[in-house]
Amino acid sequence: MSEPAQTLDGWYSLHDFRSIDWTTWKILSSDERQSAIYEFQQFLSKLNDTNEGSHAFYSIVGQKADFMLMILRPTIEELNELETEFNKLKIAEFTIPAFSYVSVVELSNYLPQDEDPYENPHVRSRLYPELPKAKHVCFYPMDKRRQGQDNWYMLPMEERRSLMRSHGMIGRQYAGKVKQVITGSVGFDDYEWGVTLFADDVLQFKKLVYEMRFDEVSARYGEFGSFFVGNLLEEHRLYSFLHVNQ
Amino acid sequence: MSEPAQTLDGWYSLHDFRSIDWTTWKILSSDERQSAIYEFQQFLSKLNDTNEGSHAFYSIVGQKADFMLMILRPTIEELNELETEFNKLKIAEFTIPAFSYVSVVELSNYLPQDEDPYENPHVRSRLYPELPKAKHVCFYPMDKRRQGQDNWYMLPMEERRSLMRSHGMIGRQYAGKVKQVITGSVGFDDYEWGVTLFADDVLQFKKLVYEMRFDEVSARYGEFGSFFVGNLLEEHRLYSFLHVNQ
Amino acid sequence: MSEPAQTLDGWYSLHDFRSIDWTTWKILSSDERQSAIYEFQQFLSKLNDTNEGSHAFYSIVGQKADFMLMILRPTIEELNELETEFNKLKIAEFTIPAFSYVSVVELSNYLPQDEDPYENPHVRSRLYPELPKAKHVCFYPMDKRRQGQDNWYMLPMEERRSLMRSHGMIGRQYAGKVKQVITGSVGFDDYEWGVTLFADDVLQFKKLVYEMRFDEVSARYGEFGSFFVGNLLEEHRLYSFLHVNQ
Amino acid sequence: MSEPAQTLDGWYSLHDFRSIDWTTWKILSSDERQSAIYEFQQFLSKLNDTNEGSHAFYSIVGQKADFMLMILRPTIEELNELETEFNKLKIAEFTIPAFSYVSVVELSNYLPQDEDPYENPHVRSRLYPELPKAKHVCFYPMDKRRQGQDNWYMLPMEERRSLMRSHGMIGRQYAGKVKQVITGSVGFDDYEWGVTLFADDVLQFKKLVYEMRFDEVSARYGEFGSFFVGNLLEEHRLYSFLHVNQ
Amino acid sequence: MSEPAQTLDGWYSLHDFRSIDWTTWKILSSDERQSAIYEFQQFLSKLNDTNEGSHAFYSIVGQKADFMLMILRPTIEELNELETEFNKLKIAEFTIPAFSYVSVVELSNYLPQDEDPYENPHVRSRLYPELPKAKHVCFYPMDKRRQGQDNWYMLPMEERRSLMRSHGMIGRQYAGKVKQVITGSVGFDDYEWGVTLFADDVLQFKKLVYEMRFDEVSARYGEFGSFFVGNLLEEHRLYSFLHVNQ
Repeated sequence: MSEPAQTLDGWYSLHDFRSIDWTTWKILSSDERQSAIYEFQQFLSKLNDTNEGSHAFYSIVGQKADFMLMILRPTIEELNELETEFNKLKIAEFTIPAFSYVSVVELSNYLPQDEDPYENPHVRSRLYPELPKAKHVCFYPMDKRRQGQDNWYMLPMEERRSLMRSHGMIGRQYAGKVKQVITGSVGFDDYEWGVTLFADDVLQFKKLVYEMRFDEVSARYGEFGSFFVGNLLEEHRLYSFLHVNQ
Repeated sequence: MSEPAQTLDGWYSLHDFRSIDWTTWKILSSDERQSAIYEFQQFLSKLNDTNEGSHAFYSIVGQKADFMLMILRPTIEELNELETEFNKLKIAEFTIPAFSYVSVVELSNYLPQDEDPYENPHVRSRLYPELPKAKHVCFYPMDKRRQGQDNWYMLPMEERRSLMRSHGMIGRQYAGKVKQVITGSVGFDDYEWGVTLFADDVLQFKKLVYEMRFDEVSARYGEFGSFFVGNLLEEHRLYSFLHVNQ
Repeated sequence: MSEPAQTLDGWYSLHDFRSIDWTTWKILSSDERQSAIYEFQQFLSKLNDTNEGSHAFYSIVGQKADFMLMILRPTIEELNELETEFNKLKIAEFTIPAFSYVSVVELSNYLPQDEDPYENPHVRSRLYPELPKAKHVCFYPMDKRRQGQDNWYMLPMEERRSLMRSHGMIGRQYAGKVKQVITGSVGFDDYEWGVTLFADDVLQFKKLVYEMRFDEVSARYGEFGSFFVGNLLEEHRLYSFLHVNQ
Repeated sequence: MSEPAQTLDGWYSLHDFRSIDWTTWKILSSDERQSAIYEFQQFLSKLNDTNEGSHAFYSIVGQKADFMLMILRPTIEELNELETEFNKLKIAEFTIPAFSYVSVVELSNYLPQDEDPYENPHVRSRLYPELPKAKHVCFYPMDKRRQGQDNWYMLPMEERRSLMRSHGMIGRQYAGKVKQVITGSVGFDDYEWGVTLFADDVLQFKKLVYEMRFDEVSARYGEFGSFFVGNLLEEHRLYSFLHVNQ
Repeated sequence: MSEPAQTLDGWYSLHDFRSIDWTTWKILSSDERQSAIYEFQQFLSKLNDTNEGSHAFYSIVGQKADFMLMILRPTIEELNELETEFNKLKIAEFTIPAFSYVSVVELSNYLPQDEDPYENPHVRSRLYPELPKAKHVCFYPMDKRRQGQDNWYMLPMEERRSLMRSHGMIGRQYAGKVKQVITGSVGFDDYEWGVTLFADDVLQFKKLVYEMRFDEVSARYGEFGSFFVGNLLEEHRLYSFLHVNQ
């Protein structure tokens, strides 16, 4: 048996993708819509009332979903409660579940073993990240392949470590352009990892993911789920996004 | 032909995952909701009125489902009747079927052949388990792969036994942290086994499943279905879970 | 080109799986429900008014369906008419199509070639079977694999025959415990065969299918669709099954 | 690069499969139903008012669809218009789209190159066929496999030609029993070809498709989509098919 | 690691496929329909009021969708806003999302490196294309395969370049017959590329895609999604397309 990598685990994460049922939303009176938006805004604001967590809110391009709310919290119970709270909002009556992902912020642990990594400030800032207000988001889930000759989990630890190192180099070239949050979901959801990317230039997502695809880790061992791309949904934009002339 | 392993079979099992239709649920009057919740609670309480079975009730994180009810009973007829009884409850009108799984508690039989394993108290406690009130649950169905060179069912019995032994060792390291209930579903449902894990620390699911993935049994021969993760839904939490301010 | 096996073909078969829409069913008045059930019973009784065919009616465990009606008839036109007749019943308004399967009872022909197998009474009883009133049913569709080195249809006739012979031996060990009806569906539906098993002890389905999976025919060449398992739905049980307190 | 086969292309083809929403259909008054059926019949009759095309109309067995309308026309615009015209009929309000297929009648061209095949009467009758009023229809889409060692498109032209020749021999044995219309759909729909079979004895579909499966072209290179089987829906049968006692 | 090809990226692209809900559309009064069509036309006209983008509007043949609107714009925010604007139109209440695709116009960059390709007029006309008013459109998404021995991303740059060169030769033979717009979607949507073809003779799509399938790039390395084919929906045809006699 090949030795598993050690991982460090931070905040729990829920990605919640929803589509809007515009037809029924338009049936509401203007006042009812305003009060539903206001209640939604209150819910979003309240998400900020904590040092123990972070969230990101983006509109999604194309028919897969209309928006994505990503929430980080110290426990999975809190995620479950916030999800249920959202489900009880007025606005939720006009949304259709599109996709969700349950995971936990994860780092591979290659630090020297003589310190507690959870005390390392650099590590802490990555395990308990404040999600950036970048203009764009990209999310996709992924697996490491276990297929015939291309079986990641049968590779010796040393080989995996060396492959991951060169893989990481590509990511590092995008430092300052793309912020990457890796969340682990083995035992929690259908893929093994979720990848959430943040950037002010949406084209950097394409460049980064494309470049990585030529790296052996992705080329031979990467299996990818659906890709979602979106634009920051700031408070003022939420109003125009949900506004209808009726 | 490779010799099949002997299995011991205990209680029949039904995992029933449901989503709540919050929009129609909110249309009910507060009184109607209270009486629907009360009726549901009565149904859940009645499930306890037996020594011949057990059940577990958890909320599920993410959009795959809102809750899971897992029921164990001596016969598949009883499961069918309880399922139908649930379907006739008021609360069921506000739920949407999300996923279900039909199986039977299963143990591989490596006991000495000179005793009747069904008389062995240790075996009995595993075939007819009382499901724990752990804080978290994880469920996933799985197959053993039959693909090209990675064909579990073409391996000699001895090799399978030895692979399973080292696989079991990993599970045993989690004793006290994760309780594992294996149910067999060959001939009953779409995968060959269901795995239900219980733990007070949800992270142990990820650690256990991830560690196992490097073991040859999973790395080469495991095919996994959807993963569901959830939180214990105790009586008092059910009320707040289903409560809406309307 | 490898020589195809000869097959004998009997009655045409339709498996019709339906879910009940309990919410709308409960909206009916008690009288309307009674008359819908009565009309359904009449339809089911009428299915008995023939020597030229047989049927089986079972409730299904889990969310895949609520019941299955399997009908055998001499022509595919009769199946189509009975299906349409069912669709026009009152009860059908409260059912949701869940799955169906179109096939024809099939036997591999290894009889001596000097007699007309369709005149052989033993053969006739298998091609035109009376479906048993066993307590349980199991249904699944299947293909023979055509994948890389594991290509059933590229094997020489002699090898297929010998593999099938030892495969059949397993089935024969379950004689008296499991009755097996094989229906062919090449050109009729998405898989190549349907397998319908009947037993009074539901566990025998699991034992039989599991044991067969280690046989090379299944291990290397079997591809399986969804599995359905259910309980006999006799006339008196149909009433309680469909009864609601409203 | 392997040389592509030359093809001859005839009429464009649309297969349109629909399910009937019996519940809403029954809500109509008897007069409204009669007038909807009458309008539908007019539409079907009008399809005959041309020498430039043909159509076939069959009920489908099982839950995949209730009927299939296959239309052949000289241009794809005409198919699109007829499809839209159907969508605006009253009857269409009571149908649910089930499956469709867009293709063009296709022949492989192995004729001597010194004549214009489109002038050859035999070729013309196959490119612009009058669809027969056979009792039964069978439809399935298919691809040629491109997988590892079994990659049709990497085979030399000569090998493909010789494989297709022996494949065609099987079809020819069914001359008089099964009429076969091959339509090409590369660039038009999700599979590469559609196969539509017509026969008075439905069992011939099974025999033909099963026998072909042992031929290398299918055994190693055939990938099949869903299979649909049905019965001729003549004018008088359409009335009884759609008639309800209400 | 194999060196990635350099790409040039132009306008962002959204393909939006919709089905029409004819039943509810017919319920509107004739006046309401006229005003909904007029509003839709205004929206489509406004799409022309820019030099910075282009769009194409086609009816789609078969049940996959009723129409496709493809929009090109300099930023992904504009696509998102136009999509939302469409969703708020009256006509949108009578459409059902069928499929969408998010990508960016892409060219492989094999120009001499001593000039800025974004200044080259020929390159600019392809990165920022005016979509033609051809009679027909064909759209499909695709991946390059990463499977066992057929792993595009593991090939040396030189081999990929040479394979793509001969692949491009096929496309060039269709110059004047088929206009091809390649859009990249790595990191944006589920496949790696979208291919949109325009032609006045719909058969050229089939000929082009079929011929390419024998080329090694497609034969060994192409994985294709769904194919959509359609007819130009000019302003006057939109009125008759949406017109109903009620």
